[in-house]
Amino acid sequence: MLSDLNAVRAAHIILASSSPRRVDILNNVMDLRARVVPSTFEEDLVKADYTPAGYVQENARQKALEVYRRLCAAEAPPSLVIGADTVVVADDKILEKPRSTEAATVMLSELSGRSHQVLTGVALVYGAAYGAPPTEDSFAEMTEVDFASLPPELIDAYVASGEPMDKAGSYGIQGMGGSFVTGIRGCYQNVVGFPLHRFCTRLDVDRLRRSGRAGSMESPPV
Amino acid sequence: MLSDLNAVRAAHIILASSSPRRVDILNNVMDLRARVVPSTFEEDLVKADYTPAGYVQENARQKALEVYRRLCAAEAPPSLVIGADTVVVADDKILEKPRSTEAATVMLSELSGRSHQVLTGVALVYGAAYGAPPTEDSFAEMTEVDFASLPPELIDAYVASGEPMDKAGSYGIQGMGGSFVTGIRGCYQNVVGFPLHRFCTRLDVDRLRRSGRAGSMESPPV
Repeated sequence: MLSDLNAVRAAHIILASSSPRRVDILNNVMDLRARVVPSTFEEDLVKADYTPAGYVQENARQKALEVYRRLCAAEAPPSLVIGADTVVVADDKILEKPRSTEAATVMLSELSGRSHQVLTGVALVYGAAYGAPPTEDSFAEMTEVDFASLPPELIDAYVASGEPMDKAGSYGIQGMGGSFVTGIRGCYQNVVGFPLHRFCTRLDVDRLRRSGRAGSMESPPV
Repeated sequence: MLSDLNAVRAAHIILASSSPRRVDILNNVMDLRARVVPSTFEEDLVKADYTPAGYVQENARQKALEVYRRLCAAEAPPSLVIGADTVVVADDKILEKPRSTEAATVMLSELSGRSHQVLTGVALVYGAAYGAPPTEDSFAEMTEVDFASLPPELIDAYVASGEPMDKAGSYGIQGMGGSFVTGIRGCYQNVVGFPLHRFCTRLDVDRLRRSGRAGSMESPPV
């Protein structure tokens, strides 16, 4: 995709997430010039109805579709809406953002001294011309993360720092939480919240060019 | 170490490297308040005399010792000097920073479609009291990195971006180069240039407290 960066930058790409880490990867690291339009999707899916990989993909898809429909209704159809959702999975249990400092302490105790999985689901919703339904693509990427044993006073100090509170699994690998990680197997950016390599290989630049043209036209060509 | 962060921050820590990535990990991610004093060590070791792990450790050690001696000569003895050196190893060949865009193109072609190792050596030089020699500790950390196959036009576009030029192995995993990486095995920060977890477990906070007291006193206690 890097050799097509100009075509990608020229498209109207929307990121349906306000996660500063995803914005950083797409707009600072890759300079894709995506506009950020946070989704209002409630994220009220019933976890028991899904595998973890299915759950993050469906969350990502619903986030992207909500933003796509809203922009089309506002007569600002985008070329591409990117949705993403990240969870931590330990013993087949899905860990999301902690709701309290106590919940963060419990999650970090569960992750201490063992391996867990980080799953990010990504949905790509490409705009279609003339009122046709959008085309969709989605995938989930998994990375294994090995945690050192964390003494209780270390967990307390980390929770007191505030870093865990807005992060799936109650830690940020790109922050002080990175000091707990002895190693990973798989894509690092996936743990941060966006599987960059897989996105770059999966993005369909030809489709993006077509949907970009469609989005910029008000009526069919004659 | 996180539960001892205040003691670490109170010490006079010197980072003998001006690598913006190392400064970021120590001072932004971990907020260690280290002062940056780049080493003037020539980095003229003969590679053939060392294993790759021995080579990066000795480079790190020489960098740290040069800065330690300079600060002591200026009567500003530090508590701790941290030296670090990172190389990429492919087929037992050490790849450092490219000397030209052509060299960067060749290195990236060598890394394309296969795995390589990233080695970072770290040296910790703790200050001693009253003219005694400093105490030293050093280690090397290895991470395996898997690269996707890179078509020539992708390599050309990446070299043209300028990103490869100041980086061992001609890529930055924390930048656009991260999009080439299908996965890693081991510590991510080690690939960026500083093995954060290993440093945190290896740092001897008690020794740092003692050398901090020594450094701040002008004469022996009575």
